Amino acid sequence: MKVPFNQVFYTGEEMEYIKDALARRELTGDGFYTRQVSSLLEKKFGINKVLMTTSGTHALEMAAQLADLKPGDEVIMPSFTFPSTANAVMKQGARPVFAEIKEDTLNIDPLDIERKITGKTRVIIPVHYAGIGCEMDRIMELAKMHGLMVIEDAAQAVNARYKDRYLGTWGDIGCYSFHGTKNYISGEGGAIAINSSNPIIIKKAEIIREKGTNKAQFLRGEVEKYSWVEQGSSYLPSDLLMAFLYAQLNQLEEIKSRRRIIHDYYTEQLKNYLDSGLIRGITTVPGDCDSNYHLFYLLFESEKIRDAVIFKLQRSGISAVIHYIPLHSSTMGRRLGYKAGDLPITEKVSNCLMRLPLYTGMKKEEMEYVVAKLREIFKEL
Amino acid sequence: MKVPFNQVFYTGEEMEYIKDALARRELTGDGFYTRQVSSLLEKKFGINKVLMTTSGTHALEMAAQLADLKPGDEVIMPSFTFPSTANAVMKQGARPVFAEIKEDTLNIDPLDIERKITGKTRVIIPVHYAGIGCEMDRIMELAKMHGLMVIEDAAQAVNARYKDRYLGTWGDIGCYSFHGTKNYISGEGGAIAINSSNPIIIKKAEIIREKGTNKAQFLRGEVEKYSWVEQGSSYLPSDLLMAFLYAQLNQLEEIKSRRRIIHDYYTEQLKNYLDSGLIRGITTVPGDCDSNYHLFYLLFESEKIRDAVIFKLQRSGISAVIHYIPLHSSTMGRRLGYKAGDLPITEKVSNCLMRLPLYTGMKKEEMEYVVAKLREIFKEL
Repeated sequence: MKVPFNQVFYTGEEMEYIKDALARRELTGDGFYTRQVSSLLEKKFGINKVLMTTSGTHALEMAAQLADLKPGDEVIMPSFTFPSTANAVMKQGARPVFAEIKEDTLNIDPLDIERKITGKTRVIIPVHYAGIGCEMDRIMELAKMHGLMVIEDAAQAVNARYKDRYLGTWGDIGCYSFHGTKNYISGEGGAIAINSSNPIIIKKAEIIREKGTNKAQFLRGEVEKYSWVEQGSSYLPSDLLMAFLYAQLNQLEEIKSRRRIIHDYYTEQLKNYLDSGLIRGITTVPGDCDSNYHLFYLLFESEKIRDAVIFKLQRSGISAVIHYIPLHSSTMGRRLGYKAGDLPITEKVSNCLMRLPLYTGMKKEEMEYVVAKLREIFKEL
Repeated sequence: MKVPFNQVFYTGEEMEYIKDALARRELTGDGFYTRQVSSLLEKKFGINKVLMTTSGTHALEMAAQLADLKPGDEVIMPSFTFPSTANAVMKQGARPVFAEIKEDTLNIDPLDIERKITGKTRVIIPVHYAGIGCEMDRIMELAKMHGLMVIEDAAQAVNARYKDRYLGTWGDIGCYSFHGTKNYISGEGGAIAINSSNPIIIKKAEIIREKGTNKAQFLRGEVEKYSWVEQGSSYLPSDLLMAFLYAQLNQLEEIKSRRRIIHDYYTEQLKNYLDSGLIRGITTVPGDCDSNYHLFYLLFESEKIRDAVIFKLQRSGISAVIHYIPLHSSTMGRRLGYKAGDLPITEKVSNCLMRLPLYTGMKKEEMEYVVAKLREIFKEL
């Protein structure tokens, strides 16, 4: 049997909506389906204003511009994240300051955030790893105390909650991804959630997204011509992709429960290996959190064991993979002055973490095969 | 009769390719159809390396990063262009220096480029207005003489030539757009043409496009893991959009000749008004150029006449529109220190230019209706 790491899931309605989008002949940004999906996200998650973007990366770039980051400013974020979190900040000339993660959730450690706040700190970017929420109440309290802005990198965390609120709605701004590897997809795509009701921020976001023009105001009849009023880029996704996404978001809960079944099966079958001397961590959803079951990981006792398991799974046709190379010790991180050894938990996690196959359409026999093979491998080790 | 300004044209194969893309389950960037369209563009236009992008704007942003523009650098470009040309340069902290256009083609004037070259000039960005080429031989000569890089903003100029070479292939880099309003479309989308065969530039382009990671090298098996090596963004279009574009590019010449018919009809029917005292300019393709017939404009003797004609056409159900508000005299241009009066030809053109409806699927009776109504209006004026 071949078990891929990930596989695109179709709800079955995608082609129908794409056909309709073609019939409407509105294929550029902000057409009919863009309005449908942004309004759906606003209502479902309780967001003041959602603007769809060309990617999660671009949602982060917009957020960094909205935060008005400037050279000299510092932004605290985990090192255990995708490069886009840091790139967005550096595009504004600001400096990423990498904080340590916690071993239980692999999310940023509020204690380390606090240690790293200086007079130059302007923003905190918590990243909700695996769709499991950071301790947003503590982070928001810290931000309030020090007058900082909070941008949630909720790329993996669409339709997940921390306490009573959806991820992406705690901070001033939340950033979502609908990349083909996520739970809900549009091929490439994302969204920025603006939780502030400040009309100035929303207007600025519209301008940045529309190539620095006031076209959004023009389309509403508020100005007679539209022109260049600000620095901006092009962050509008084609309505064709939003038609596809609409089909996916129509099964928001269905997709989540399908993933939960796989997640719960893995947990049930594998948690007893925590005492085996092989594994020292496994995806765990804290009581405060409602996960979207984006991914399932095992943390091994050593890199050597991890690599051996990945290799053996591969030989059985199962694609299990590592995750982030820490940003601070990467080529670019070293150029920023960081070095290996700066964040020991992050480095250990990166070296010992393996992600198991988990995709919405995963069949029962596929899950069972993965677990059976893992059991065999663990017995051999 | 209602005649829109623009309308999406389908070749008829779009749904077939989209269905196939869905079946391939590669909906993120750089899938099967991305490879098809980039290879088609490379072969057809004779480009060393084409990388598809999320928009023409993003192709320009990539080009500005590849030029390694820095604060203090100056970039010469027309003011009569879309804000993306200038935004791309400003994202790097460099300064747009606006040059005057020529009245015959509305393209940048090489004489004014020469006047505006200083010790700080690093790049020239000619913009091929209406799909009609700038004087690329003279511009390349100027660039060579002063050691400058040339980035062609060929957003409107896919499948058009200046002398013996396609637009976008004269400069070091060319930028194309496949936005829904262009001749060949993918909803939102673009491409960067790298004419240099320097492997360092191509590798850097791949990294910038892939969120600052060396994933392209990883996928080719050149490195074992991919990680953060450079500043970058996410410029990969979904393969779904590239499947759509493939259908369009398969009719590259067919689409061009359909547009040529409309263009030639307008020219034939309207050129005699040049002596009427109403019109002082009309889209003209110089002998050196092969146009792609992207748009058709009339330049009126005054803004008052232009506005009256637009208003009267509108009342007859015909949507004719103005074009660029000059960048130098816009809100953002004034913030850069420019003012109204700095570029008189540009300002006059902007005030007096009207674009007529022109779209690939335009029917004979629609063209005839536009011309008939124009004749009536001209008689009344």
